[in-house]
Amino acid sequence: MEKRGQLIIISGPAGTGKGTVVKKLLERNSDMSLSISATTRGPRPCETDGVEYYFKRRQEFEKMISEDAFIEYAEYNGNLYGTPKKAVLDKLEQGISVILEIEVQGAANAAKAFPEAILVFLAPPSMEVLRARLTGRGTETADVIENRMKIAERELCRAEDYHYIVVNDTVEEAAEEIECILTAERLKVSKNKALLDSLNK
Amino acid sequence: MEKRGQLIIISGPAGTGKGTVVKKLLERNSDMSLSISATTRGPRPCETDGVEYYFKRRQEFEKMISEDAFIEYAEYNGNLYGTPKKAVLDKLEQGISVILEIEVQGAANAAKAFPEAILVFLAPPSMEVLRARLTGRGTETADVIENRMKIAERELCRAEDYHYIVVNDTVEEAAEEIECILTAERLKVSKNKALLDSLNK
Repeated sequence: MEKRGQLIIISGPAGTGKGTVVKKLLERNSDMSLSISATTRGPRPCETDGVEYYFKRRQEFEKMISEDAFIEYAEYNGNLYGTPKKAVLDKLEQGISVILEIEVQGAANAAKAFPEAILVFLAPPSMEVLRARLTGRGTETADVIENRMKIAERELCRAEDYHYIVVNDTVEEAAEEIECILTAERLKVSKNKALLDSLNK
Repeated sequence: MEKRGQLIIISGPAGTGKGTVVKKLLERNSDMSLSISATTRGPRPCETDGVEYYFKRRQEFEKMISEDAFIEYAEYNGNLYGTPKKAVLDKLEQGISVILEIEVQGAANAAKAFPEAILVFLAPPSMEVLRARLTGRGTETADVIENRMKIAERELCRAEDYHYIVVNDTVEEAAEEIECILTAERLKVSKNKALLDSLNK
């Protein structure tokens, strides 16, 4: 009913399958896009500026920080990574919905920067399933898995900061549920003043 | 995720197609039911107690009023009609969702009696379409149609008392949107404390 895109923040513990669910959403919805991060690390040979990342020199990036140009940013391994506000706003203006796939800790900040954001917490069907998924990757030691499970438990306590909780039982169902959330959010009376005005004119 | 049924109130001006949308919802969802009203008018030959209506003697009905047993009630043509609370509560307990198709004025009272109710305002695509639908019925005089249009305008001003607004452009789409609303409502974090507890135990 309204033309502006929707901003959706998807978080959840490592191993719940955020990436797969986001990929499914993008496949199914041509009017959705994934937010592209900015980074100070150099591009790899296969990477293109504005596709995988916006590549920035540190000085540029720090200027953007000082200008409050990021929704959220953080430093990993000596490189800065952040979600630029303007790129997100431009897409929303064009009627394209934007998905931010971010860490559980980052979601609260992003929600402060964008009060209109719809916050979805992606949860595993059970802690046993989460452990099985982390183990199944076969890339982590038992210690790393124990540590991830402890982090996941702490992150689950943050679920109450979110609007919706979607259990990633199957990717298809999780994507459908998120699509329903977006539809329902568009149908809220509070977001349809213009429609009511046009009916009442 | 939760087993209790959902209570959904669907209102909207005469001619927006509430009945058709409700029928479609019931066809598509075996776990939904339409609330059955009680009335003091006598059953017609084709009617069965507990199917079309709960048939009550006036004395019984008035006793129920005094016991606060109705979600809402009103008198038309010397007969009392009302929505009994208990029947609705019993179905919700059994995990069956209940649709109340009620007049715009009645919705606010029903919402007071059931704070958990999800309020959906069904709107016509435009006032011109509403007029065309009312005229197309071929059963009303021009005066009656003018009067209905005036009532519809007043009722549209009440849309802000509702949670969601669904435009009945096509019945199929309107039903799908209402289904999405119900799905999204079930996914609200505030309604999934038990799920979070079970993950965190």
